[in-house]
Amino acid sequence: MIRPAELIERKRDGGELTAEEMNELMLAYARGEVPDYQLAAFCMAVYFRGLTTGETFAMCDAMIRTGETIDLRSALGRKVVDKHSTGGVGDKTSIAVGPLVAACGVPFGKMSGRGLGHTGGTLDKLEAIPGFRIELGNDEFVEQIRDVGVAIIGSSDKLVPADKRLYALRDVTGTVDSIPLIAASIMSKKIAAGAEALVLDVKVGDGAFMKSREDAQALAEAMIELGRRAGLEVAALITDMDQPLGHAVGNALEIREAAATLRGEGPADFTELVVAASARLLAMSDLEIDEEEGRRRAEAALGDGSAIETYERWIRAQGGDPDERVLPEAPVVVDVEAQDAGFVTALGAVQIGTAALELGAGRRTKEDAIDYGVGIVLRKKRGDAVSDAEPLADVHARDADTAEKAKQEVLAAYEFGEDPPPPRKVVLDVIV
Amino acid sequence: MIRPAELIERKRDGGELTAEEMNELMLAYARGEVPDYQLAAFCMAVYFRGLTTGETFAMCDAMIRTGETIDLRSALGRKVVDKHSTGGVGDKTSIAVGPLVAACGVPFGKMSGRGLGHTGGTLDKLEAIPGFRIELGNDEFVEQIRDVGVAIIGSSDKLVPADKRLYALRDVTGTVDSIPLIAASIMSKKIAAGAEALVLDVKVGDGAFMKSREDAQALAEAMIELGRRAGLEVAALITDMDQPLGHAVGNALEIREAAATLRGEGPADFTELVVAASARLLAMSDLEIDEEEGRRRAEAALGDGSAIETYERWIRAQGGDPDERVLPEAPVVVDVEAQDAGFVTALGAVQIGTAALELGAGRRTKEDAIDYGVGIVLRKKRGDAVSDAEPLADVHARDADTAEKAKQEVLAAYEFGEDPPPPRKVVLDVIV
Repeated sequence: MIRPAELIERKRDGGELTAEEMNELMLAYARGEVPDYQLAAFCMAVYFRGLTTGETFAMCDAMIRTGETIDLRSALGRKVVDKHSTGGVGDKTSIAVGPLVAACGVPFGKMSGRGLGHTGGTLDKLEAIPGFRIELGNDEFVEQIRDVGVAIIGSSDKLVPADKRLYALRDVTGTVDSIPLIAASIMSKKIAAGAEALVLDVKVGDGAFMKSREDAQALAEAMIELGRRAGLEVAALITDMDQPLGHAVGNALEIREAAATLRGEGPADFTELVVAASARLLAMSDLEIDEEEGRRRAEAALGDGSAIETYERWIRAQGGDPDERVLPEAPVVVDVEAQDAGFVTALGAVQIGTAALELGAGRRTKEDAIDYGVGIVLRKKRGDAVSDAEPLADVHARDADTAEKAKQEVLAAYEFGEDPPPPRKVVLDVIV
Repeated sequence: MIRPAELIERKRDGGELTAEEMNELMLAYARGEVPDYQLAAFCMAVYFRGLTTGETFAMCDAMIRTGETIDLRSALGRKVVDKHSTGGVGDKTSIAVGPLVAACGVPFGKMSGRGLGHTGGTLDKLEAIPGFRIELGNDEFVEQIRDVGVAIIGSSDKLVPADKRLYALRDVTGTVDSIPLIAASIMSKKIAAGAEALVLDVKVGDGAFMKSREDAQALAEAMIELGRRAGLEVAALITDMDQPLGHAVGNALEIREAAATLRGEGPADFTELVVAASARLLAMSDLEIDEEEGRRRAEAALGDGSAIETYERWIRAQGGDPDERVLPEAPVVVDVEAQDAGFVTALGAVQIGTAALELGAGRRTKEDAIDYGVGIVLRKKRGDAVSDAEPLADVHARDADTAEKAKQEVLAAYEFGEDPPPPRKVVLDVIV
């Protein structure tokens, strides 16, 4: 039997736990035999000392073993693919990638989470669609992947219950920002959900969880290794989150942008990320094509109507109405006009995310209600030329007061210069 | 209202809490509004980041405010003195210092704790005396100091209840070994117990909590500063715990040694520490004498019988029988004979403490029962010349089996050399 205090002290002093000890610690925690206060101290020691790859995998593996797992291979006889983002402002990528790879003949199955703070969650965005059901049982999840080729649902409570408890604990004990704990948390859920290939979108920059390239790379490598050890094929895109992704920030606004992108009418940066992630997934699928061919097929599906058709079929299959005219709209829309001329040199993602949050597009606490219609549409992004009084963005608000406040915050998020900034790609690196 | 998660994160990142924030955190914890898991994470962050003097004092002050305090000045119209040790092997100092300063006319009032692990506790030693009562109410405590001049009792649950809860939490979360947390814990209890002058015995070495002079010095300085801010005059002796203190280790054996010392027949190192601590206390008392005069009076009291008389009066006042013939004795006493000749160059305090613990003199867990008669009497200490087969120590055991095991451990604690080691004083430094 392990002595948790001894394990905490060893980690605190920079030592290593055996796989068995780490496994037993997590399983005992899940059984309620190790109290929250010991796990909290352990996580803080991990914050300072880190975990080895072996410790991280043992933790991840133990968390998976606290709940059910789904075997999509046996259920579908196909290699199902999945995609996960570490979260950013304006990140509606999965909502486009899912139907796009499905349109190319590859089954896509994703369990997703909600958003908190300045980054939105995929489930919240999907719930902007009237009638859309995010709570499907595991059987419905499997059936829909088989019948429609794509399903995105809320995480089942039966999968990795220890992660839910541990995450709630980390959230209130200052132990969220630890790369091995993040990697184990994300990958335990991805491995349990049963896909066989996964593209990770690890965002880096001001608006992302990872502020530096080094941290993003370390997180990506940790997650790839956890997947490899569990038999899940993983590739990671390191992508830019120094400015919001695409133009739309806010739930219904982002659904419109995802649909537009699937019709081939999306913003350049967002379209590039959707195509890059999809091409990588197609190359990892059972189609046996390379990434170049994957990119060709993904671009074709955006152009020939098959991507948007698959999207509409998917939304209907989950009870939603894909007609954009039924999406909620904000009653007040105001222009944000430039007060300078020149080039946009920076567009702070956190500031835009916070402005959207304050408009009501996100939640500060788990209990907050979301206003699905509100948000911001950015007309100018980094590198764009702006003339004086030209519209920079539209604010979609519930009333004039909140619109005015958001307008000031959006203005403050823009920085201008006389020369265009050096160009930056949305996909900064690919790690396989 | 404070947000504990935000305070944890700030401390984790090396920032500082305001006195108000620290105060409110501890008071909210004591009220049960901040859960154990947040305090555990906070303490682990403090382990890595430390606390400023201001934070430590705010913590100490808040802990005091969770319970009652005693005002010995108002109750007695005298300046009462106290002494505290950070714990070591063979440390029966308070049991001699209390009656010695009382014999010199200075009231001594101490609340004490129990021992755990290889170091014994003053209360456990006193309980070796048949009939001795450690649980006196606050009124009885005050009365006895007035009538007898000395009282040593168990800490009241009503004083600093938050410390008891916090210490129990730290004990199982790897957060005991933090100098500011130790300082706040010790000093909150000392300040609440109402004495106006305190001598701290901060032990350093193999058998002590503090392994290095730097740590001992830092702890002493932190405690002196906490006392100063609360109006408690504090001096600290840094004393040697690389070998056990005195000759006797084990509860009844140590009571005999304390009494012998009060008759002027104690071991040199222990007598020196008792006189040094007492002289310092007399110089801090309301007698208005300097330390040199304090030392003269303390030495006189050891020689003229007044110290042992005061000791006997004190023991009787707390219900005990000071007659040494009633003290428990171990049924088996065996010699440990030297297997080498030469000089003792080292005598491991932890090894001797552990041998005594295994004989039954201490407790591994709070629930263990103590065997008051068992222990070890060291006949040879560091610097002593030893001839082959000369007795090094006596083991006092409950049976032959445990005696044999202890004998081997005692032998292993001794190191020999051809030349005597450089002499080392018991009092290494004095910090005021």
